[in-house]
Amino acid sequence: MTDAGPVDREAWRRDWERAAEPYLLAASLLFLASYAVQVLVPGLSPGWQAFWTLVTVVTWGLFIAEYLARLLISDDRRHFVRTHWLDLLVTALPLLRPLRLVETHDRMQRRRDHPRLALEARVMAYASLTALLLGFAASLAVYHDERHAPGSTVRTFGDAVWWACSTLTTTGYGDITPVTARGRVTGAVLMFVGVALVGAVVGSFSSWLLRRFRREGET
Amino acid sequence: MTDAGPVDREAWRRDWERAAEPYLLAASLLFLASYAVQVLVPGLSPGWQAFWTLVTVVTWGLFIAEYLARLLISDDRRHFVRTHWLDLLVTALPLLRPLRLVETHDRMQRRRDHPRLALEARVMAYASLTALLLGFAASLAVYHDERHAPGSTVRTFGDAVWWACSTLTTTGYGDITPVTARGRVTGAVLMFVGVALVGAVVGSFSSWLLRRFRREGET
Amino acid sequence: MTDAGPVDREAWRRDWERAAEPYLLAASLLFLASYAVQVLVPGLSPGWQAFWTLVTVVTWGLFIAEYLARLLISDDRRHFVRTHWLDLLVTALPLLRPLRLVETHDRMQRRRDHPRLALEARVMAYASLTALLLGFAASLAVYHDERHAPGSTVRTFGDAVWWACSTLTTTGYGDITPVTARGRVTGAVLMFVGVALVGAVVGSFSSWLLRRFRREGET
Amino acid sequence: MTDAGPVDREAWRRDWERAAEPYLLAASLLFLASYAVQVLVPGLSPGWQAFWTLVTVVTWGLFIAEYLARLLISDDRRHFVRTHWLDLLVTALPLLRPLRLVETHDRMQRRRDHPRLALEARVMAYASLTALLLGFAASLAVYHDERHAPGSTVRTFGDAVWWACSTLTTTGYGDITPVTARGRVTGAVLMFVGVALVGAVVGSFSSWLLRRFRREGET
Repeated sequence: MTDAGPVDREAWRRDWERAAEPYLLAASLLFLASYAVQVLVPGLSPGWQAFWTLVTVVTWGLFIAEYLARLLISDDRRHFVRTHWLDLLVTALPLLRPLRLVETHDRMQRRRDHPRLALEARVMAYASLTALLLGFAASLAVYHDERHAPGSTVRTFGDAVWWACSTLTTTGYGDITPVTARGRVTGAVLMFVGVALVGAVVGSFSSWLLRRFRREGET
Repeated sequence: MTDAGPVDREAWRRDWERAAEPYLLAASLLFLASYAVQVLVPGLSPGWQAFWTLVTVVTWGLFIAEYLARLLISDDRRHFVRTHWLDLLVTALPLLRPLRLVETHDRMQRRRDHPRLALEARVMAYASLTALLLGFAASLAVYHDERHAPGSTVRTFGDAVWWACSTLTTTGYGDITPVTARGRVTGAVLMFVGVALVGAVVGSFSSWLLRRFRREGET
Repeated sequence: MTDAGPVDREAWRRDWERAAEPYLLAASLLFLASYAVQVLVPGLSPGWQAFWTLVTVVTWGLFIAEYLARLLISDDRRHFVRTHWLDLLVTALPLLRPLRLVETHDRMQRRRDHPRLALEARVMAYASLTALLLGFAASLAVYHDERHAPGSTVRTFGDAVWWACSTLTTTGYGDITPVTARGRVTGAVLMFVGVALVGAVVGSFSSWLLRRFRREGET
Repeated sequence: MTDAGPVDREAWRRDWERAAEPYLLAASLLFLASYAVQVLVPGLSPGWQAFWTLVTVVTWGLFIAEYLARLLISDDRRHFVRTHWLDLLVTALPLLRPLRLVETHDRMQRRRDHPRLALEARVMAYASLTALLLGFAASLAVYHDERHAPGSTVRTFGDAVWWACSTLTTTGYGDITPVTARGRVTGAVLMFVGVALVGAVVGSFSSWLLRRFRREGET
């Protein structure tokens, strides 16, 4: 790597990104699982507690190491940070990692030469899946932050999931709402990101429905 | 049926689907009606109780039998399950059967050579009707599950309908909300499916309005 | 009118519709005003009370008479009812009359040869205005029905307007909600019609914004 | 300026508008900052209190003077008022000034010959930024009006921000809602303007997502 020209290093970085993608995706699911177990399982034995804490720390460490490695080998580091801001965000907050799913999915589809779904179906599948994972992560985070807070209405994980559903669809019943500062920041992120994702699902569904009815009309 | 080639059997299945459609639609309305009567009429005599239970069981049995029959005669069963997942869903939960309305409607329109409405009007009519039936089914289910639950805010069927309206439009006042697990699952399904359907209605209305104003501009 | 052929009578009806339009619009505003005064002004003297009741009755009678007259002179009455269902609706419920505004506006614009706004601006103006009038009518109706109801949260007309705003935008805070059956029916109509109108405004605004940014990009 | 022809004066006004833009933008941020400090910092010393009041008054006076100057030098004053109604609005209510951001941004981009983002990205950036500034201004105004009102649920500035988030996305939990007349007027403006802006963001995001998936499909 010492004498390689800039072009080689950039190509090498892109190769690496392509190869590392599925492993990072698996690691992010592991991170989510370890967080979920720690939040949801009430009486973990000290051994399991240590194990899952280790999984959390190791996967998060992996994300940070991988980001730093790519940053270090890139030729123009300021350019790298500017064009990979989503990578930085999901490295700092691994619960948001589902947002990177679109690129992973793109790359895997391209490689496998998989038979394609209709355009709208793909957008709907991607946006729904991301919204689902994000809603699950937000439910975990809110349940974690709110369950022992004074005046909280989130008493069970079911409450948190119900809150996440009513937030993602912007229904917002208000029977269950976060009261802590951290819970509300999570809620605000879920609202803004979730609204955009659900909007994309609804828009794609509408356009799919219109296309379906139009095709029928032409027959 | 023993020596028939694969093409014949597939054609036979499609013929059957076309012929059975209106009867299955009628059966699904009967199922909805029997469920509605059992939930809404308070002091049914044992005889009527037995009658409506029988209607529920027979219509549901019919849906299952019809799905299994089509599955058995299809050549590639895994392919059948994958491409007919909506059929499986509405067979397991007949209250969701309104979702199949689009195909039934498509087929009947094609056969009858009926004068067509404008594209947007058809999408609006279909999506509104499905949303209406779904909202009615959800009101019934929530009223059934919640009316005797402790801490419930759903005391009359009118409350349940009001809740369904505020959920479908994503207004979500929160004066009436389900508190039981089953009621909330019903609510979440109504939110996600309903939001998509109402979004389609609103989108079609917007595009119809734009087209109307544009046509006027050209005159 | 005795020997006139069918074509003449249809032409005569269209002429009449064109001529009567502005007067009916004025009458519908008068109807709204008389309803508003009766609902909003607390201690009307018997004389004024009688006057405004008279205005309500006369304007409503006018709408019914005008609809019946057009129905009677039309050649194919069933066709007339089917194609003029919106006229029937706004005759039965004059508070919904704002919905006819689009046609009145269309006709007046065409006659006056008025300089046109951009397409999206016209859709936004029309949909906003209709939503505004509808929201005002719904506020009046809900205030009228709810203010003396037990357990009602609508105590002032300001409360009713605030409720109408939060309903039209589907925000739905739920701090103020109708509790009577009539108030909830009004609310449901406002939700569904209002959601469609506000959706049209938002959609037109988005497309206007996109067009504006695109034009700038081309310069 | 005495003998200049009408064309010269109009050109002079446009030159002025172009030159004054960045200074007015800076002044409007200063206005927002001075308002924020007065609302948010609890125990200001009399000196600072006077200083920030001065900043508020001077910047507001500047906006009014600038609007009047442009009005006076324009040839057709009624035309100027009609075509610059947004200028009048943001002069009367400087907290709404963020709405003018689009034109300022357009002009600065054009001058600097800045590399352009994709169309949807620009719409999203503009609409998000305006919604953000508007939400911040509304949070300040509601916190200012509500914090000492009887029965108010807005006790901290965090409450006001949380309320603004749930309003902008039309979630509308209703755990925190304005109760004073001025707070509700602020809320209604935020709802209607915010809904349009967030709708534009969601629409652009959907169309960006569709385009991205389509491009991938073509590769």
